[in-house]
Amino acid sequence: MSKKQFAPASGARDFLAGEVRARHAAFNIVRGVFDRYGFEPLETPAFERLEVLAGKYGDEGDKLVFKILRRGVHEASGEADLALRYDLTVPMTRVVAAYGSQLPTPYKRYAIAPVWRADRPGRGRFREFYQCDLDVVGSVSPLADAETVSALADALTRLGVPEFRFLVNSRQALHGLLETYAVPDEISNRVLTVLDKLDKVSPDNVVCELQSIGLDETIGKSVVTDLTADDADGRMRRRLSTSEVGRAGLAEIDQLLDVVSGQIRHISFTPSLVRGLDYYTGVIYEVTAPGMPGSIASGGRYDGLVAKLGGPDLPACGGSLGVERILPLIPEDADSTPGLDVAITVLDQAYAPELFAMTASLRASDLRVACYLGGSGKLARQMKWANEQRARYCLIYGRDEKAANEVTVRDMSSGDQVRVPVAGIAPYLKVRCGI
Amino acid sequence: MSKKQFAPASGARDFLAGEVRARHAAFNIVRGVFDRYGFEPLETPAFERLEVLAGKYGDEGDKLVFKILRRGVHEASGEADLALRYDLTVPMTRVVAAYGSQLPTPYKRYAIAPVWRADRPGRGRFREFYQCDLDVVGSVSPLADAETVSALADALTRLGVPEFRFLVNSRQALHGLLETYAVPDEISNRVLTVLDKLDKVSPDNVVCELQSIGLDETIGKSVVTDLTADDADGRMRRRLSTSEVGRAGLAEIDQLLDVVSGQIRHISFTPSLVRGLDYYTGVIYEVTAPGMPGSIASGGRYDGLVAKLGGPDLPACGGSLGVERILPLIPEDADSTPGLDVAITVLDQAYAPELFAMTASLRASDLRVACYLGGSGKLARQMKWANEQRARYCLIYGRDEKAANEVTVRDMSSGDQVRVPVAGIAPYLKVRCGI
Repeated sequence: MSKKQFAPASGARDFLAGEVRARHAAFNIVRGVFDRYGFEPLETPAFERLEVLAGKYGDEGDKLVFKILRRGVHEASGEADLALRYDLTVPMTRVVAAYGSQLPTPYKRYAIAPVWRADRPGRGRFREFYQCDLDVVGSVSPLADAETVSALADALTRLGVPEFRFLVNSRQALHGLLETYAVPDEISNRVLTVLDKLDKVSPDNVVCELQSIGLDETIGKSVVTDLTADDADGRMRRRLSTSEVGRAGLAEIDQLLDVVSGQIRHISFTPSLVRGLDYYTGVIYEVTAPGMPGSIASGGRYDGLVAKLGGPDLPACGGSLGVERILPLIPEDADSTPGLDVAITVLDQAYAPELFAMTASLRASDLRVACYLGGSGKLARQMKWANEQRARYCLIYGRDEKAANEVTVRDMSSGDQVRVPVAGIAPYLKVRCGI
Repeated sequence: MSKKQFAPASGARDFLAGEVRARHAAFNIVRGVFDRYGFEPLETPAFERLEVLAGKYGDEGDKLVFKILRRGVHEASGEADLALRYDLTVPMTRVVAAYGSQLPTPYKRYAIAPVWRADRPGRGRFREFYQCDLDVVGSVSPLADAETVSALADALTRLGVPEFRFLVNSRQALHGLLETYAVPDEISNRVLTVLDKLDKVSPDNVVCELQSIGLDETIGKSVVTDLTADDADGRMRRRLSTSEVGRAGLAEIDQLLDVVSGQIRHISFTPSLVRGLDYYTGVIYEVTAPGMPGSIASGGRYDGLVAKLGGPDLPACGGSLGVERILPLIPEDADSTPGLDVAITVLDQAYAPELFAMTASLRASDLRVACYLGGSGKLARQMKWANEQRARYCLIYGRDEKAANEVTVRDMSSGDQVRVPVAGIAPYLKVRCGI
C-alpha cells in the first residue's frame, strides 16, 4: 500500500480474501468446539451506552475506551453518549441482568467478536481485534472450571497449535500463602500485582518493589522463593497446609487437575502464576506455547464480578482464547483461497445467453464458476485469466461449437480438450470436479 | 427485558443463541453462493478516518454518521477523528485505491458486515444492521451486471424466499425519456428523484411536485403516464426509439434480460423504477416480494462512483441484499438451536474424573455433550435439566455402575435404560446419534 490517505485507520486492518477465509475457518473451528460443549453463542452490539462501560476497566482501561460523540444538535457539546465495546465480559453481564430467566441456568455462553481499544498500536497490538470468550455464569461446580479449561484445550488442539501447556494456580492459594506470612489484607492485592511481574522482572527487583509497598524484605524474599524455587510445588503445599484458605486453594487446584489431566497432556500447578486482575476469586490459569511470548489463552473463576459489573450476584468462571495471537501460528491452508472449478471464456458477447445458461447449470451443481468479464475478445488473453483464477477446467464456445450445439472443455492442467454436448456439460464436469 | 438500564443502546440489538444461529446460517448460505460465483470476501475495520467518510453521503447522510471522539489530551476538544462505517461501498473504494495491483482484475468482492447509522430507530429500522454487498469493479461487460443479478437471485432462492420479482430499468433509458421531452439537463436528476416517489405518492402529487421544480404540467403528466400506464413497456420503447441515449438504455436492459431471463422466473423491464441515488449510470434493479414493503435487494451500474469516492476511475456495478428484511421472512429452522446428544449427570463429585473422561471420549467422537453443573445431587432434578437441554441420551453413573465399570444410558425419548461398559460408551452412542 503506497498512499497514506488510503490506509485503514491507525491500529485497524483490512483483510483481503485469503486472510478473511483463514480467519473464518479458525473461528468456525472454535465455534464447533464450543457448540459441542453445549455453550451458546451470544452477539451484542458494537457500542454500549457510555454508562454501561464507564468505570468498569480501571483508570488505565477507561482511557482506552473509544467514545462516540452525541449527534445532531448535541454534537457541538463535544460530549459522548455511547462507546465501542472494550471487551466481551461487560456486555455479557448486561445481558445476564437483562434476560435473566430467559437464559438457561447455568448460562454457558461464548462470543467471538471484535473489541476496540485506543491502545498505542504496535507489533501484534491492534485497536480493533477479535476476542474469543467462553463463560459459565451461575455454577459453583468445579466441573464448570473443568469444562472451560477442557474446551480451550480442545479448541487449541483442533486449531492445530502443536504444543501448549496449562499453568494452574488459585487466588485462594496465593492469599493463603500471604496469610502464612501475616501480610496485612489491605496490601495483599497490591502484593499479588507485584508478584505477577515475576515472569518479566528479576526476583531481586520484585523484592525491592514489594518493599516499596510496605512488605518486609525478608518476607518478600521468602515469598518470591516459595513461588519460583525448583521445588515450588512441594514448598507451597507444605506452607499452605497451615492455612485454611491455603488448603481450600490447594483443594480446588487438585480437583481441577484430577478431572482434566487425563485429557490435557501438559497441565500443572504453577505457584508463580498470579494473573494481575484482582477480580479472580478461585482457580486461575494461563496457556503458553513454545515460541510465543505471553499467553495464548487464560481464565479462571471470578465469583464476584457479574455483580460488581452491575449484574445479578452470580458465581462465574470463564476463559479467553487469544485468537489474534494464535492465528499467525496456524499453518496456512492452501485451500483457504480456492481456485475456480470452471472458467467460462466469452469469445463473442452475442453468445452470452447460451454461455450464461451453461454457467447457471454448473452453479446449480454447486461448482465454483466465473465468466470472463474483461474487454479482450482474444482466447489467449482469456486463457491467461483462467490460469490466474487457478481454474481446473475452461469452457470455450465459438462458432463451430455453437453450430454443433457442443462446447469445448479444456483441462487446464493437462491442456487436453474435448467436445461435450451443451446439455451434458453440468453432469460431465460435476463428476470430474468431484462434487 | 424489564430494566431500561440493562437494555442495549437505542436502535441496537442483543442476539441470543437461536437468533445468532439463524443469522449465521443465513449469512453462510449467502457466502456460499457468492463464493461459487467467484466473488472474494473483504473485511474492513468498523471505523474509518473521518475524512474517508466525510462528504460522501450527502447532507442528510453525513448527519447520520456516528463519529468517534478524539482520545487522551484531545478528548476535551470535543472533536472527532474517526467514524463508524456507514456503508460497505466507501470502505471498498478505499481498499481498491490502496491495494490496486494486489487485487484481481476485475475485482469481484462481497462483504457481509454491520454498518451503523444514527437514524431514528423504528419498526425494522436499526442503528446497527448488517449489509450484504457484492460488486464488480473494473469491468464494463454486461455479463458483470448479469453475474451480480444472478448471484442475488440465487442467494434469495437458497435462503428460501419463496417468490420474488426483479424490476429492471436503466438510468440511460430514463435520461433518454427526459431528453425526448426536452427537459433541461440541470433539473433532470431532480426530476428523477421526484419520479422515484411514484411507488409511494399519487401520480397527481408527483406531477405537482414536478411543477414545483420547474417542469411544465403537461410534460409532467405525460412523463408520469409513460412510466405508469398499463402498456408502459411498449410506450417507453416507442418514445425511446427517438433518442440515442434512450436506445442505448433500452439495449442495456434487453441485454441483461436476454442473458438472465432463462435463470430468473420473474424479471421484467419496469419503466417506473427510478432509484433515487443519482450515482447510478446504467442498468438499475430492485427486487420485491409479496407481503414485503419496499425492496429486498437492489443494485445497478455506477461507473463514476469509485473515482468520485476517492478511488481510481474504474467502471463498477453491484448489488445489495437486504438481509435484515429477509431474515424475518426465512422459515425458522428448529435445528438452529440443537439439543445435546448426551447429558452427563453427576451424582457424586467424587466420580467427576471418570465422568469427565467419558465426556471427553464422547466429544472426541464429535458428539454434543454437557455435564450437569448445578448444585443438586438428586437424579430427578438432573433428569429435568437433561430434558431442558433436549438431550437424546443421558448417562447415569452411581455406586453400582462404578463397581461394575459400566454406565447406565437412558434414551430420553423412550425412557429405556441399558448398561454399557465404560470403555465402549463412545462407539455405542456415536452409532446411535448417527455421527
